[in-house]
Formats: sequence, structure tokens, C-alpha cells
Amino acid sequence: MAELPPIITLGCDLGGTNVRVAVLDGGGRVHASVKRKLTDRNPAAVARELAEGAREVLESVGAPLSRVEGIGVGTAGQILGSTGMVLVGPNLGWRDVPFGDLLARELGRPVRVVNDLSAAAWGEASVGGARGERNVVLVFVGSGVGSGLILGGKLYEGAGGLAGEFGHVKVVPGGRPCGCGERGCLEAYVGGHNIARRIRELEAGGAAKAILKAAGGDPTRIGGSALEIAAEEGDPEAVALRDEMAQMLGVAVGNLVTVLNPSRLILGGGVLTGMPGLKRRTVEWVRRAGQPAHVRQLTIIDAELGDDSGIVGAGLLGLAATPGV
Amino acid sequence: MAELPPIITLGCDLGGTNVRVAVLDGGGRVHASVKRKLTDRNPAAVARELAEGAREVLESVGAPLSRVEGIGVGTAGQILGSTGMVLVGPNLGWRDVPFGDLLARELGRPVRVVNDLSAAAWGEASVGGARGERNVVLVFVGSGVGSGLILGGKLYEGAGGLAGEFGHVKVVPGGRPCGCGERGCLEAYVGGHNIARRIRELEAGGAAKAILKAAGGDPTRIGGSALEIAAEEGDPEAVALRDEMAQMLGVAVGNLVTVLNPSRLILGGGVLTGMPGLKRRTVEWVRRAGQPAHVRQLTIIDAELGDDSGIVGAGLLGLAATPGV
Repeated sequence: MAELPPIITLGCDLGGTNVRVAVLDGGGRVHASVKRKLTDRNPAAVARELAEGAREVLESVGAPLSRVEGIGVGTAGQILGSTGMVLVGPNLGWRDVPFGDLLARELGRPVRVVNDLSAAAWGEASVGGARGERNVVLVFVGSGVGSGLILGGKLYEGAGGLAGEFGHVKVVPGGRPCGCGERGCLEAYVGGHNIARRIRELEAGGAAKAILKAAGGDPTRIGGSALEIAAEEGDPEAVALRDEMAQMLGVAVGNLVTVLNPSRLILGGGVLTGMPGLKRRTVEWVRRAGQPAHVRQLTIIDAELGDDSGIVGAGLLGLAATPGV
Repeated sequence: MAELPPIITLGCDLGGTNVRVAVLDGGGRVHASVKRKLTDRNPAAVARELAEGAREVLESVGAPLSRVEGIGVGTAGQILGSTGMVLVGPNLGWRDVPFGDLLARELGRPVRVVNDLSAAAWGEASVGGARGERNVVLVFVGSGVGSGLILGGKLYEGAGGLAGEFGHVKVVPGGRPCGCGERGCLEAYVGGHNIARRIRELEAGGAAKAILKAAGGDPTRIGGSALEIAAEEGDPEAVALRDEMAQMLGVAVGNLVTVLNPSRLILGGGVLTGMPGLKRRTVEWVRRAGQPAHVRQLTIIDAELGDDSGIVGAGLLGLAATPGV
């Protein structure tokens, strides 16, 4: 067994169906990780499952729990500052769950809970593609759309832990309904679920034939991938829809660049990584819509840590939260 | 003569035609101020004029220059961090002017130069309507449109001093030309000069009769005030134009609230203070477009220090920049 690093921290990614726990060293390197299915979304049950995962992964590297110097959990939703209180956890159906306390009780040490994209931004700004940068904007487009903000060298969470809700900026006032209950949100147009929904609406109206064909003729397989294939093949309808998405997303991101003047913009998430043509056009719109001076100061990059950005950031934030470290 | 306060700092507002210099105490109270016309926009001449103003106002309160513990200058444009370098000063036609150094040489002490709306935000967050708040967004709509951001208790200037350029977020991609050289900027629709320009365009096309009448029939007096009068009188054209402006501005500000989650939003500037109907509708759109949870955490206020926000903020920032204070 390899020698244990001098500092061990646990990074956790708490999703709606799985939890992943990793052992990291103080430099954010992943030494081992485990993934466990969540069979019960009850907060206490989730805390127990995550604690089990922590014990399992620690055992796999031969480290006792007493060696752990930090624990950080990233999860989608609204977290109240550094209190560990999950105000809204959409994937778990949680409201006002003191998850940090629940997990701290299971593991006998303090736990930092943080929004998953804030964690990803922190991971990338600490040891990933934006390391050393003090002003970093991370935008992820997956089934949902969100952002993480590192401003002035610090994780920016806003007055009530709600900062970075980029998926819910309004791009079409009064427009399509969004899962959040509002209308016209960016996520209602470019989030993965909503891309599929929009295409199925077109298909139900007798359109989107080329996209349906790209989905193997199976309406249930319609989504971003089929859209990308049909657009790359030049289908005018697919091209128009993808261009509209790229413009909405790119202008919104460009506006963020104009207001926040970051040095790094990280673009990621399943929709963007799965639709390179959409991503390319989005980047073009960011450069066109952002103010020229701001764009000149900006480097646009991928998440260098890939799927580990969040888990690494959570672990490093957990470390920072532990007194005396 | 009143007793001098224990700490004296100078706050300066450097505009395109005037410079104003005020003597402040450490609590940001204005003890005296002078205004001088700029006859020459040459940077060295402006520095001399401002230094003259400083000596004049100090003399008026019987304070020697040696008593001054800080000097801060707020001016429109892009300032490079705390270097005192004015990268772009649109009102003065400046590019890459080391104004902080020029003025420091005139007065024999360090000078902090800062964007005027950053200064205003700092003034309001320090001793104005947002005092004690750590996350404050200030949006001013005058002839230009801009913002100042206090994030996490600090003045936020971005990676290259360009943060807060809110007037240049794109609201209509490819839309009306803006003074900045780009198209579709918010300022091209709601900035004071552009309001007048849009109405004159309508008038030249034979429309905007009620707005022209509200301007006393004088096309050169067409502007926001005439628009407000005609809209209040129910002229459908004026109402539609004002509503469109309120929506554009309110949605853009609401999106800023959704991303930054501030506890205070300060709305000010000549256009908004001169058009209360526009302001009321803009606030309605901010509340409608911002995410509900963010809006619940938000208080929308006026600039409590009025026209002094910038000069007070600049003076207090100047104080903070002086070593040992």
C-alpha cells in the first residue's frame, strides 16, 4: 500500500441518486474514491450512507478516520453560507435540511456543505485549469444550468448563499416555463431536459424529422445528442435551434463577463461536452457579446479536473473550514 | 471656525467638465467642498486644477495639507486596480493616463483613483443606505449606465479593473449602436443621451407628437423628462417606450440579483431620479425577473448620500489606501 499523504481530506459529491466520496491529499489529488447508490432520500439515511462511504474509502487506503483533517460535501441547490444548512436541495427534494450537522454527527468532525458548482469552481481555481486565478467564472450546462463564482480570490456565495443561480437569469421575459416555477429562464431553453422537451414538442407538431432520425427514430431518445448530429448534417431546423441556444447561452455568459471581468471562464457540463458544435458557437457568442476589453482579458477553458472538479473543490473547502488548518 | 476632525481625507469627483473636491472626516461626513471648472483636459492640467481645488477647500476649513490622511478620486471609466492608472476615461478622452501618480506628485502624498460608481457603492456601503452590508449592487442610470459592486465586504473590480460595466450588457444582440462602439448595449436603450436620440428618431418620422409637446414643442428639449410627462399623461406611444425601457433595465438588473444575491440594491442616477414612473416600473421588473428567493432577501433603496455617494466613497477609499491607516 502506498504511503499516506501528510494531510487527508474527504471530498463528497451528493447527487440525487448516488453519492461519491473521495480521499484527497492537501494538494487536491484523488487517492481513492467510492460511489454508493442512495436507496433512501431521508436526510438521516443519506448522512449514514455517506458516512459508510467515507469509512469504506478510508479503509481502502488504510487510513483511520482520525487522520481526516477536513470533510466537504458538494450538492446541487442552495446552501446557507458555511452553516451546512441545505435550504433547497432540488435533486433530493430537500428543504431546510441541516445536512452538515447530520453528517458531522455521523463522522464526529466538522463538515462543510457547499453548492456543487461552487465546489467545482473552487477545485478548478485551486488546483485545476484556473489555478492561481483570483476571478473565475464557471458555467456548467447539464440537465440543469448553473455557475460557480470565485471573486477576489474567495468563493462568492452572496448575501444568503444563493449566488451563481445563472440558469435562472431571464432570457425571454414571460417565455417557456422552467422547472423552478418561473418563466423564461436560461435553463428552460438550454438545460438538457428542456432541450429534449423542446424537440419533442416540435416532433409532436410534425417537425424535427431529421432530429428524430438522428435519435434512431425513437422519440424517447430525442435530446441534445440527436440535435447535435442533425445540426452537423446540416438540417436547417436543427441548425436554427442549436444556433438559438448558442446565442442565448453565449450572450448571457458574455454579459456575466462584462459585469464580473473574470480572467478565466470555465465551460463544462454534460450538454456542452456532448455537443461540441453547440459549445463552439456558444464561445463565439461569448466573444461577440462580451465587451471587447473584457474578452481580451479572458481565457476560456474546459474543466481540467473533469468530473472531479466538484469533489476536489469540496474536499479542499472542507479542509479550509477545519479550525487550525 | 469649527474644530477640525481628528482624521481628514479628501474625496474628489472628476467629471468631464468639472471637478469637485470635498474635505471629509473619517466617518465620511462632508465638512466643505469646492467645485472647479476644467478648462483643459490635459492630464497634467487636470491634476493641477484638482490640486488647486484641494488647497482651496482645505484653506476654507483651516486645515493644512499635512493633516490630510487620504486622497481618493472617483472618475468615470476603467481604472487599473489600485495603480491609479486610468485605462479609459471616456468623459475626458483619456487613455492610459497615470492620473494617480500625476496628482500624487502635485500633492506630495498617495492618491487612490477609482471608478466613480465603485466609489459611490463604497460610500453607500460604508456610511450610506447600505452601511454594514457586505453584498451591495449599485446601478446608476444617467447619461451613461453603470454599476458598482461590493461583494463579500470588498470593492469588486474584477481581474483587470473592468468589473461593473453594466451599461454594456447586451439586451438586443445586434441592436442599436452604443457609444462604446458595440451594438445592443443596455445603455443604447436607457442611457439619457440615447433616450433623447430614440425619441428624436421617432419625431423625425412624424411620431412622438405628445412627447414633443411635453418638451414645449422644442425638439432640442426632447429627453427623459418629456417622455415621463407624456407617459404620465397616458400617451400610448410614450407609455410603450417607457415600459420597454423599464423592462429592459429591470430584467437586466433582476438577472444581476439572481447571479449575485446582494442584500441591497441601490438605484440612482439622473434618469431614474428624474423619471419616477420609469423607476417604479423598473423596480417592478426587477422583482418579477429576479428569482423569488433572491428578491425576498433583497432591499431596494435610493442612494442615501445623494450626489455625495461618489465623493464620500472616494475619500474613504483614499483613506484605506494610505499606509498605516
